[in-house]
Amino acid sequence: MVLPGRAMATFRLALIQLQVSSVKSDNVTRACGLVQEAAAQGAKIVSLPECFNSPYGTKYFPEYAEKIPGESTQKLSEVAKECGIYLIGGSIPEEDAGKLYNTCTVFGPDGTLLVKYRKLHLFDIDVPGKITFQESETLSPGDSFSTFDTRCQLLVYPGAFNMTTGPAHWELLQRGRAVDNQVYVATASPARDDQASYVAWGHSTIVSPWGDVLAKAGTGETIVCSDIDLKKLAEIRQQIPIFSQKRSDLYAVEAKKP
Amino acid sequence: MVLPGRAMATFRLALIQLQVSSVKSDNVTRACGLVQEAAAQGAKIVSLPECFNSPYGTKYFPEYAEKIPGESTQKLSEVAKECGIYLIGGSIPEEDAGKLYNTCTVFGPDGTLLVKYRKLHLFDIDVPGKITFQESETLSPGDSFSTFDTRCQLLVYPGAFNMTTGPAHWELLQRGRAVDNQVYVATASPARDDQASYVAWGHSTIVSPWGDVLAKAGTGETIVCSDIDLKKLAEIRQQIPIFSQKRSDLYAVEAKKP
Repeated sequence: MVLPGRAMATFRLALIQLQVSSVKSDNVTRACGLVQEAAAQGAKIVSLPECFNSPYGTKYFPEYAEKIPGESTQKLSEVAKECGIYLIGGSIPEEDAGKLYNTCTVFGPDGTLLVKYRKLHLFDIDVPGKITFQESETLSPGDSFSTFDTRCQLLVYPGAFNMTTGPAHWELLQRGRAVDNQVYVATASPARDDQASYVAWGHSTIVSPWGDVLAKAGTGETIVCSDIDLKKLAEIRQQIPIFSQKRSDLYAVEAKKP
Repeated sequence: MVLPGRAMATFRLALIQLQVSSVKSDNVTRACGLVQEAAAQGAKIVSLPECFNSPYGTKYFPEYAEKIPGESTQKLSEVAKECGIYLIGGSIPEEDAGKLYNTCTVFGPDGTLLVKYRKLHLFDIDVPGKITFQESETLSPGDSFSTFDTRCQLLVYPGAFNMTTGPAHWELLQRGRAVDNQVYVATASPARDDQASYVAWGHSTIVSPWGDVLAKAGTGETIVCSDIDLKKLAEIRQQIPIFSQKRSDLYAVEAKKP
């Protein structure tokens, strides 16, 4: 998720590493409580993890899916407005016209729905003897980008890596993305549940534009916070000017839809 | 550098972490000796580091620059043919029509020059109190891609990171590139010389498509070897099928020149 926009010098970002249970209403209630706690600690942007109101697994998605707007996102809108924060609603299974999606919503400080983003690249993996999981068994991919304007610049990825890809790739990919793009990067994972059919890696993390890990959760339910300093970001972009050195005469990345 | 082409199941790759001195002819002679040694160890592709025949520094480039073909690349052609290997000639300062370039050459097993690649993105850095270095003070950037066909698939980066970017980004970026593209990635650095005006990081490395470090040098002159297994690469691409999931309906990367 890209949150572009006008520069605000510093602000606090919080990630909610929620322990997801099988009771949807409990998940939503506890998520909102932790959002309030993060806001009380000064967070202006808060992110929930991927699939925060449902256990993560293709067999759960049809049962837990709901419309957007719907009961879960209504609660997100209310808590965002109550706390006066930007709330990135991780993701929930969404049902629309008979299809299921893995969908992220973002609410503004007045409770307005700013973005609805349906995961574009579904997670399919088959590592023999370790893990086989195919989101595409029950989910459909989205078909558009979703951006909105806010007063900060960072990449936030609600994600649920597992015990195979977690140790191998979770921190690596976000640190790589941070350095390649010279931006702050944050990842919000569900807490680990060793009894779940899909065991999430946890370790929600905030990384600086230099690739340093600023804050990192363990595996249990917790709030991860860091101050995001956009002056620091501007300094790093000046120190190694990769943006001004891009060779638009030689290559381009084209977005085919808005 | 991209070396695309037809699949060969396994082959040995070697990186020469050369201790570069101020005597150009010594650098070339020792480089060729180490290439012969690597070939004797079974390497079929050998890479030299960035700026292997000259100290790395803008004040050295005008003095050490030569034409291509020229004395240094003639030696590379001869040793490639003698050993029957692909030789990636790291880079040398090149002079052409009054301009200087940071140029990589690749020679085939018959000694033919397959590629001449002039560095496209010059290295400019200014981290106050740590390092200031501007390749663009004396070098001009290249203006085209350079690819050739061979029987293997990997990314090889001759590079000379320093004591600031080395610990922060050297291993991170190559591991990130390996996982993002599901390819083997190799980086060939000069050996460290603590007395040099620009102190290279060393740590030439070979990384698997899963992001694992397969072989990694220390800081001194050495040969780094690893067997490259293209069956393993194909397996990883099947396990996490990111290539077949690309959304060409939504985005594209366009090369504006061949």
